Amino acid sequence: MALSTMIHTNLPTALCGGAVNRISVISAHQQAFVDSKLNRGARRLAESLTSLLHLNIEPPSRKNLEYSNPDLFAEEKHNTPTTSPKEMIAEKWRHLHGSTDWGSLLDPLHPWLRREIVKYGEFAQATYDALDFDSFSEYCGSCRYNRNKLFEKLGLSENGYRVTKYIYAMSTIDMPRWLERSRLMDTWSKDSNWMGYVAVSDDEETRRIGRRDIVVAWRGTVAPSEWYEDFQRNLEPIGIGDAKVEHGFLNIYTSKNKSTRYNKSSASEQVMKEVTTLVQFYRGQGEEVSLTITGHSLGGALALLSAYEAAVNLPGVPVSVISFGAPRVGNNAFRDELCDLGVKTLRVVVKQDLVPRMPGIVFNESLQRFDDITGTLEWVYTHVGDELRLDVSSSPYLKRGFNPMGFHSLETYLHLVDGFHGAGSAFRSDARRDVTLVNKACDMLVDELRIPQCWYQLAHKGLVCNEHGRWVKPRREPEDIPSPIGDQAHKHSLRIQI
Amino acid sequence: MALSTMIHTNLPTALCGGAVNRISVISAHQQAFVDSKLNRGARRLAESLTSLLHLNIEPPSRKNLEYSNPDLFAEEKHNTPTTSPKEMIAEKWRHLHGSTDWGSLLDPLHPWLRREIVKYGEFAQATYDALDFDSFSEYCGSCRYNRNKLFEKLGLSENGYRVTKYIYAMSTIDMPRWLERSRLMDTWSKDSNWMGYVAVSDDEETRRIGRRDIVVAWRGTVAPSEWYEDFQRNLEPIGIGDAKVEHGFLNIYTSKNKSTRYNKSSASEQVMKEVTTLVQFYRGQGEEVSLTITGHSLGGALALLSAYEAAVNLPGVPVSVISFGAPRVGNNAFRDELCDLGVKTLRVVVKQDLVPRMPGIVFNESLQRFDDITGTLEWVYTHVGDELRLDVSSSPYLKRGFNPMGFHSLETYLHLVDGFHGAGSAFRSDARRDVTLVNKACDMLVDELRIPQCWYQLAHKGLVCNEHGRWVKPRREPEDIPSPIGDQAHKHSLRIQI
Repeated sequence: MALSTMIHTNLPTALCGGAVNRISVISAHQQAFVDSKLNRGARRLAESLTSLLHLNIEPPSRKNLEYSNPDLFAEEKHNTPTTSPKEMIAEKWRHLHGSTDWGSLLDPLHPWLRREIVKYGEFAQATYDALDFDSFSEYCGSCRYNRNKLFEKLGLSENGYRVTKYIYAMSTIDMPRWLERSRLMDTWSKDSNWMGYVAVSDDEETRRIGRRDIVVAWRGTVAPSEWYEDFQRNLEPIGIGDAKVEHGFLNIYTSKNKSTRYNKSSASEQVMKEVTTLVQFYRGQGEEVSLTITGHSLGGALALLSAYEAAVNLPGVPVSVISFGAPRVGNNAFRDELCDLGVKTLRVVVKQDLVPRMPGIVFNESLQRFDDITGTLEWVYTHVGDELRLDVSSSPYLKRGFNPMGFHSLETYLHLVDGFHGAGSAFRSDARRDVTLVNKACDMLVDELRIPQCWYQLAHKGLVCNEHGRWVKPRREPEDIPSPIGDQAHKHSLRIQI
Repeated sequence: MALSTMIHTNLPTALCGGAVNRISVISAHQQAFVDSKLNRGARRLAESLTSLLHLNIEPPSRKNLEYSNPDLFAEEKHNTPTTSPKEMIAEKWRHLHGSTDWGSLLDPLHPWLRREIVKYGEFAQATYDALDFDSFSEYCGSCRYNRNKLFEKLGLSENGYRVTKYIYAMSTIDMPRWLERSRLMDTWSKDSNWMGYVAVSDDEETRRIGRRDIVVAWRGTVAPSEWYEDFQRNLEPIGIGDAKVEHGFLNIYTSKNKSTRYNKSSASEQVMKEVTTLVQFYRGQGEEVSLTITGHSLGGALALLSAYEAAVNLPGVPVSVISFGAPRVGNNAFRDELCDLGVKTLRVVVKQDLVPRMPGIVFNESLQRFDDITGTLEWVYTHVGDELRLDVSSSPYLKRGFNPMGFHSLETYLHLVDGFHGAGSAFRSDARRDVTLVNKACDMLVDELRIPQCWYQLAHKGLVCNEHGRWVKPRREPEDIPSPIGDQAHKHSLRIQI
């Protein structure tokens, strides 16, 4: 592993150090115990690191208690709806889609835009929630459900979109450990990973938002700590001009191999083919069409690459990117070309999240200090578009203290968007999104809420007790087994609609 | 924490050290990743430690593959019953209960005795499986279900027993961190933990086993790594003779406090009161009665203490102890008095498990070497009764390599009992118990089985999505909220039976 690795990577060591002075008779107990120890470990570490990082977050302390407003944590909150009413936003859609850049809508954040940002963020979150990452599963690295079930299974049906295509990317990229791999020999695919999907708004949502909206949602799974090695390589050209982008991201986006089952075509080709089909179909119906591309972390980087490609190949289609916690992707020329192509980008960024600073600040493990490599890289890698800047300390529900995992978590982002009114304004008292979701995969909620950390887990890790009393892995429904011919079925469904 | 701590405590540090060169975008991923890293870490550590320990277990290696007999892991196995047929053992019950000591029944292991050992072991396992250890739960340290639901919820109903009483012990013992504590202020009890239960065989099971069998099952939660401090204290007298037992165990067993809700009487008093009531009741019915006390780890130690007390106070009642992975508890006089009182003890011990060697071998953290403190302690602390000695390497389903957690796990014990034929004999090919259970709370199963480690977990850590789309902690059924008046209800139920 590289000498320099992101601070993320050092945190766990410290935590574990603090977390192991005990073993319990059953590891479930131990886990519960370690969890609580981890928090204490994190607090200790926070004090030593926050100063170095100048993150301006108070080390965790009684400070939290300032927020212990009983009303905030009252159980009545359990009985309020989690979604704000849906407005008809048809006549304003181009502005909400960035036509005049977002600046004017961000501070204060326009409530219609806030709702749209959360909608797209939840599309990105779905790529995490539905991933099978059990390394003993023959379907490790695939989606647990087929595209027709995805939104229903994740409770996203009321967003009014329909998934039309799953996207697969090569898992054999030379970027260090970047995808889920099964430990088994006989797996659904040795070469590919489910990397996201294409979806399209249904008729009702189309009426509400004023156009047929095509969405591309990218999954992000790269360990930020390991991007750095890759950032040091040369940028690679994209397009015909001077635009250059990070080698690893482009590699993931464009790799293919004739001998594979799911990547005979690259992620890039799959997306462009599907989006083109949809655009042609709905334009053929005389409809207005938009393309909105979203993703978190690595997914946000891939979103920019596909936005660039779509803008080049689909002239006249309004293309926007709404990314969450994305790193820098390309050089100034890349930024300028995106701008010239009319791609509108809204980067949602949590001030305390380190990933959007990459390439940039890194932690030198050997020297135990921070190296700012911006001298060599910041002016090479440039951010794109407008930024919606969020602050962990704006939410009374979130712990203080250094928590890179929590700061970067997409659910933390969505919580902060939901509560954001404007820079410096207090957290929205009428924010409706379920706060509990924040702790799905991290430990960011204040103890007063009594929500366990990292609670988003399957019962018995997916094992079920069969009629003989044996705990077994249930077979997947045949229709949930990844199939490369999925899009044939889809084209058929399009024809039917005509 | 004590200078000297058991080797257990050192393992995690090393593992974590190896497990943190990466952070993933969602911690579920990270967990999956860390899990696999942990294994590699454990292997590395194994090589360095096994020699020190002279455990005669091969460091993990291709060795496993010897066992990769496809038949063993064939899916057909999923369709075989998990329980062996129940024989009528009425006329042999005194032998199976140890009347002539167990020696003659252990090698080869009598199939009837094997089945009984597993039955009692599952009663002990129930105390782990039903414990609420969520430190954010107001019921942390209590049983999730009331006594009438326990066996049904855990699939143990077909054993033919009925729980009559729950046992609570003080959680404010001065033995270091030994019980589950809620982080909340308003918890069901600040002073007590659910520590086990008393159960009695129903009429059908009573006919099968030839007597009315009263069972006491003790939970074991102490961190073995922290017993050592306590072992160094003086032994404390028990009874009127020279018998002495370990200070901490006796403390847990006998502590009470008038001001508490669940421990106005001690665990000892609760058990003796309930057992006496049952004995008088069934003897009053002219039935033959036996008392069988079981427990794992600390639970095995408490089993000996309660067996001693019961034998003293209930002359004529055959008392047996079946313990799993229990440490030494008392001095020679304690052993001799138990023997004179006619208490029959069968200690099930896994050769590679370190806990039954305690007090004994310990790992000196500061000196990074093993201290054998037997010089000062072994002749003070003495094991009791007969030993059924199991060997991890006898099972083709279990990983090799150093895994103190796995070696000590009760499910590992039950798996090895189920497969045990005799010393040196191969694992029973017709063993029926579900092998998957072994990995409930550890990582002991060979990869070929494809069973995730530590899989025994609640969906979403117990959170449920309510009708408003919010994830909330469900309220407990009123009847599942611990109540000290439980036994009144029970006495009433006894009267009804008359």
